[in-house]
Amino acid sequence: MGKDKIKSNQSACDWKPSTAKKSPENKSRIIRFKKDFSWGSVKREIYKKEKESWSSVTRNVLIGSSGESAKFHLRYFEISPNGYSSLEWHRHEHVVICIRGQGKILIGNKKYKIGYLDTIYISPDIVHQLTNPYEEPFGFFCIVNSKRDKPKVLSKKMAKD
Amino acid sequence: MGKDKIKSNQSACDWKPSTAKKSPENKSRIIRFKKDFSWGSVKREIYKKEKESWSSVTRNVLIGSSGESAKFHLRYFEISPNGYSSLEWHRHEHVVICIRGQGKILIGNKKYKIGYLDTIYISPDIVHQLTNPYEEPFGFFCIVNSKRDKPKVLSKKMAKD
Repeated sequence: MGKDKIKSNQSACDWKPSTAKKSPENKSRIIRFKKDFSWGSVKREIYKKEKESWSSVTRNVLIGSSGESAKFHLRYFEISPNGYSSLEWHRHEHVVICIRGQGKILIGNKKYKIGYLDTIYISPDIVHQLTNPYEEPFGFFCIVNSKRDKPKVLSKKMAKD
Repeated sequence: MGKDKIKSNQSACDWKPSTAKKSPENKSRIIRFKKDFSWGSVKREIYKKEKESWSSVTRNVLIGSSGESAKFHLRYFEISPNGYSSLEWHRHEHVVICIRGQGKILIGNKKYKIGYLDTIYISPDIVHQLTNPYEEPFGFFCIVNSKRDKPKVLSKKMAKD
């Protein structure tokens, strides 16, 4: 199943410097889904070390922490009711696919409700934020380039619904 | 919603040469999921032009045909009961996420049953094939590098269950 365990203090930030320690593995593997929205031995981590700009977000790195050579990483994020990600922008693109519950996404100055398997492309340098104003967990895949810039957090402002 | 319509005769093959015509758009957009497992205005295409090595496979390109600058493409494939993809290998990696029904995947010389949200990483140059020996459609996301080599089809052999 690959050595996809990461210490939470090693990669607490969504962005990782190139010096981040990686397993040398690059092997094919199957990561089994479990009903509690975890996968195989992949650890659920905290979203970011800095706690000012976000609330109630976790992250599971499915592809990208086990030495995979692919040019992209696949992560599962989950936002609890009333939680929100950072209001941020960056040069790298995001692809988001909702797989649990529903949530809202701010893209630029517009906010959209998103539900099951809705797929979102966020182009470079667009301010965005994901929020969960609903009563169930809001879970989504987020795919990013393996080489990417560090997000810029716009403010501590919370985009409430 | 972006100009994500592609003529089926323009991209009938899973691999596209670098001369493939692309829309110049690179805009953020939301692609809405529909209950029939289609998304927004994305067209369902045939899997490959060459018909010898596969059966009953369709493809929807969700991210990668609308001028997106991301270093990866996101596609949804669906294999009808008794269908199968090519038995092939290539240098580029595959990430597969099952989202509809169940299927089987051959990786090297081992075959695995995969179900809902199971996630598979196929490393470079590993022979693989996806098959659907079940009675319902088998649908999955497949994420690949945007720049990738052309698959090599091993033979016309069908990996039956």
